[in-house]
Amino acid sequence: MSAVRETLDALGLVDHHCHGTVTADLDRAAFESLITEGDAWPGVSPFDSPVGVAVRRHCAPLLDLPRHAPVEEYLARRSELGWHEVRRRFLRGSRTDVLCVDTGFAPDRLTTPPELAEAAGGSAYEVVRLEGVAESVQATGVEPDAYADAFRAAALDAVRRPGVVAVKSVAAYRTGLDLDPARPSDTEVTRAARGWFARGGRLGDPVLVRHLLWTAVDLGLPLQLHTGFGDNDIRLHRADPAHLTDWLHLTAGTIPVLLLHCWPYQRQAAYLAAVFEQVYLDVGLTLHYVGPARAGAVLAEALEITPFRKLLYSSDAYGVAEFFHLGALAFRHGLAGLLQERVDADELSLPDALRIARWAGRDNALRVYRLPGDRPEGD
Amino acid sequence: MSAVRETLDALGLVDHHCHGTVTADLDRAAFESLITEGDAWPGVSPFDSPVGVAVRRHCAPLLDLPRHAPVEEYLARRSELGWHEVRRRFLRGSRTDVLCVDTGFAPDRLTTPPELAEAAGGSAYEVVRLEGVAESVQATGVEPDAYADAFRAAALDAVRRPGVVAVKSVAAYRTGLDLDPARPSDTEVTRAARGWFARGGRLGDPVLVRHLLWTAVDLGLPLQLHTGFGDNDIRLHRADPAHLTDWLHLTAGTIPVLLLHCWPYQRQAAYLAAVFEQVYLDVGLTLHYVGPARAGAVLAEALEITPFRKLLYSSDAYGVAEFFHLGALAFRHGLAGLLQERVDADELSLPDALRIARWAGRDNALRVYRLPGDRPEGD
Amino acid sequence: MSAVRETLDALGLVDHHCHGTVTADLDRAAFESLITEGDAWPGVSPFDSPVGVAVRRHCAPLLDLPRHAPVEEYLARRSELGWHEVRRRFLRGSRTDVLCVDTGFAPDRLTTPPELAEAAGGSAYEVVRLEGVAESVQATGVEPDAYADAFRAAALDAVRRPGVVAVKSVAAYRTGLDLDPARPSDTEVTRAARGWFARGGRLGDPVLVRHLLWTAVDLGLPLQLHTGFGDNDIRLHRADPAHLTDWLHLTAGTIPVLLLHCWPYQRQAAYLAAVFEQVYLDVGLTLHYVGPARAGAVLAEALEITPFRKLLYSSDAYGVAEFFHLGALAFRHGLAGLLQERVDADELSLPDALRIARWAGRDNALRVYRLPGDRPEGD
Repeated sequence: MSAVRETLDALGLVDHHCHGTVTADLDRAAFESLITEGDAWPGVSPFDSPVGVAVRRHCAPLLDLPRHAPVEEYLARRSELGWHEVRRRFLRGSRTDVLCVDTGFAPDRLTTPPELAEAAGGSAYEVVRLEGVAESVQATGVEPDAYADAFRAAALDAVRRPGVVAVKSVAAYRTGLDLDPARPSDTEVTRAARGWFARGGRLGDPVLVRHLLWTAVDLGLPLQLHTGFGDNDIRLHRADPAHLTDWLHLTAGTIPVLLLHCWPYQRQAAYLAAVFEQVYLDVGLTLHYVGPARAGAVLAEALEITPFRKLLYSSDAYGVAEFFHLGALAFRHGLAGLLQERVDADELSLPDALRIARWAGRDNALRVYRLPGDRPEGD
Repeated sequence: MSAVRETLDALGLVDHHCHGTVTADLDRAAFESLITEGDAWPGVSPFDSPVGVAVRRHCAPLLDLPRHAPVEEYLARRSELGWHEVRRRFLRGSRTDVLCVDTGFAPDRLTTPPELAEAAGGSAYEVVRLEGVAESVQATGVEPDAYADAFRAAALDAVRRPGVVAVKSVAAYRTGLDLDPARPSDTEVTRAARGWFARGGRLGDPVLVRHLLWTAVDLGLPLQLHTGFGDNDIRLHRADPAHLTDWLHLTAGTIPVLLLHCWPYQRQAAYLAAVFEQVYLDVGLTLHYVGPARAGAVLAEALEITPFRKLLYSSDAYGVAEFFHLGALAFRHGLAGLLQERVDADELSLPDALRIARWAGRDNALRVYRLPGDRPEGD
Repeated sequence: MSAVRETLDALGLVDHHCHGTVTADLDRAAFESLITEGDAWPGVSPFDSPVGVAVRRHCAPLLDLPRHAPVEEYLARRSELGWHEVRRRFLRGSRTDVLCVDTGFAPDRLTTPPELAEAAGGSAYEVVRLEGVAESVQATGVEPDAYADAFRAAALDAVRRPGVVAVKSVAAYRTGLDLDPARPSDTEVTRAARGWFARGGRLGDPVLVRHLLWTAVDLGLPLQLHTGFGDNDIRLHRADPAHLTDWLHLTAGTIPVLLLHCWPYQRQAAYLAAVFEQVYLDVGLTLHYVGPARAGAVLAEALEITPFRKLLYSSDAYGVAEFFHLGALAFRHGLAGLLQERVDADELSLPDALRIARWAGRDNALRVYRLPGDRPEGD
């Protein structure tokens, strides 16, 4: 095994963006629906896709099965062990020390951050999804002209809870990122809130989404932004993070902005990370969906110009514990592969390669979120 | 030779989107104009491009010439053999069992589907280009308020002919894919038809192009859509298939939609195939233009998240029979290379790799178009 | 060493787009600010990025230091040698015969074209940046209705100076490339000039930027266009060269258009070069920022469909002489690597590979700019 791979294998990762896992045993239909950003369609099983192949290859051994185990065997063994044990195995297997958990998306009953921490043998922090806060405020029946203050107060309450280290927005889903970058006026917000309250439904008004992003700036915590790949609720071209440029100019000098997922716009994200001090990125979600066979290729594009202090690791695991293991493994294999290749070609010194590995896998996240941990090198 | 390559080499492909070849001998200027999406410009021969290099490397041997034969020798031998024999050799060489032929673009006198089938030793089906149908209707002198009905009737007539298995639209060329997704009203269609009939020329009105796409939905057959790469009549950024997202939501549950070519938006196309049940893709046209040297790289991006049931093979050959051979060869080499690499790295089992190869090269197309053939595995 | 690499190593390059270097010794802060398109931020040194790694790896040996020298040693040795000697070493090291120098961007005191030529042991030509000309005209206090004539006259004066071979526009920075393609009327230009003169500041009015591009057409010289990657003054998605399509149609048959940088839109640029006679491209700037470890991957995408007569070399070096060396080295290593790989796989004949190498590194530029030189092959 290469020196870089050894270092990355031994490194306790910081997973700066993930979700809980479903606290129930899953039948085939339920499991399949959780390993795709689409659905399980007749004749097109999510197992017949890169992520399905990767689950059978890399997750089966942790359930004491041979590599490439057949689907039925895999699911039978998973049920036999029970969700609790399965969760423990994959979270331990991921060797993740720290988890930052987005608790704001929970159509299923999910593992809580402390439960994830216990399963992983590490610690967990919380990320507050601001759209959820806004929708809770709307549900209280507040008057439109009190919405802005009520939202800000609720968001402040939410982020002051112990263990909260960041906020998140899914503006990319709700409106796309091609928004007017300016902070909306009180009058605009009240008018937009009136419209939303009359219509009901989830937060999707462009003025209110902008207001949400600017409220994030006021909160002062790092802001995680969904960009790129997701389910079919996204308009992919409007989730290109390059659309954020004007907003990043206006908010320079305020909060760190963490671009999540990014694929297929990882080069655009890298550009932003290279030219804006406050911008960081990961290729979470992408890593387990493309699998270890392509994780290195995607990371190589993401790293073409990204400063090494700006790449973070996240799994974006949701629902099934497999994704904690698979994301971590794809990250370790992919990053180690590309760094070692450069060391072997004498394009990079080994000490530099090891430093980059530790930064991306752990230290950059400790630094951005001001988390405790062994004092990161180089700070 | 690798096991995957052997399987792909032995597989009778289904080429789900191609055109006829010119039924005449070609001088240098004519041949060059057919092997570029641009033109033959002074001092910039299309032979001095990736596709030209690939023709000399991979097509020369089928004309009994050495690999990398000089251009003049290649063209002389081609003339010596005659277009009929050349066509036979390349179509046989492509080992294509089934061809779905777009018969709606014929600035040249072209081989018909039965002639292609005979040359290939396989069978041929027809794809009806709807813009051609619309323009035929316009040419009849129909009244604008009768256009919608007349177009639908003509399209129904066209697809009811024996051997028709799909329709196609080049909306990407005519307006771009960034269209209002909604079905236009009768009033809108009549107004737009009035404008078109007064202006004349080809179909390019956005309302009528939308109407054409919705008529395709009514016809019930699979719809092939040009996306991405083409000649300079395209605005490439407006041919990004991600622009189809809203329309795909509105038409979910109706017809299969096959995204053709896709490059350089193969990842965007893969995203759509991963999140919409009805979406399929190929990287036809691209394969012979980038040549075997890069076909694997493009396929690897296309397959990053595409469900293995969603990738199809097409040559998009037009004009010269070389492209049937070159497209098939680039597909076989590229796909075999990437699958075998994963088998060798133990990222994929060999049986899975062989299954994916057969699906992509043949079975997925038989399934989408409901074509006869050996019963595809796994159905 | 491979045959292709030997040929490229021995080839005197034509660097068709570069800038001067700072004529002063640089402290760490000054040096760092010149090796990033962002800034030097606390805790995020530009040395901790792909370009910084490449400088320590590939530039240190030319300063008599070991590969991967520590930053402090590198900078100390650089100061010890002095900027004059450092400039000489890197320019000689780049083995560049001909330099086309954009003299219109000079926030620092920079080496002049003759000084660069002397340092390189080659010859230098000048590229006139049209935005600079326009801003000089504005500064003369001309009346708005005389602006168009005055700008044209000043541009003509500028390009008639000896040694001027091309003009350049940074429209991508000022407005983005998604401009109305039509030539603006005199009335529009006068109105826009009135607005600009009242507001002051740099040229950024869309009408005047369009007018500038059309004036370039009238001048008749090759036009270099910034596209893609740059500092944070760019909106990356609006610098996609595909936006130029309509303008390229309107200006077909007039001047050569050279797309600079292009990343991450090198495939879009390749498409334009494949379908418009007048379009050429390079991946300058990108090459040293991604470094030799990724230059081959970027070039491979750029060359997927680009006619081999359409790729040029540029360093886009600015400020530090290291970039002349690094750009040339990344180009040579990257292009040689991909061509030799194809020769080894028998996808390309060796004579073809050598021809492509000489065209891209030298002959294509001599041809487009009508520069003297050994008579390029194949003309």
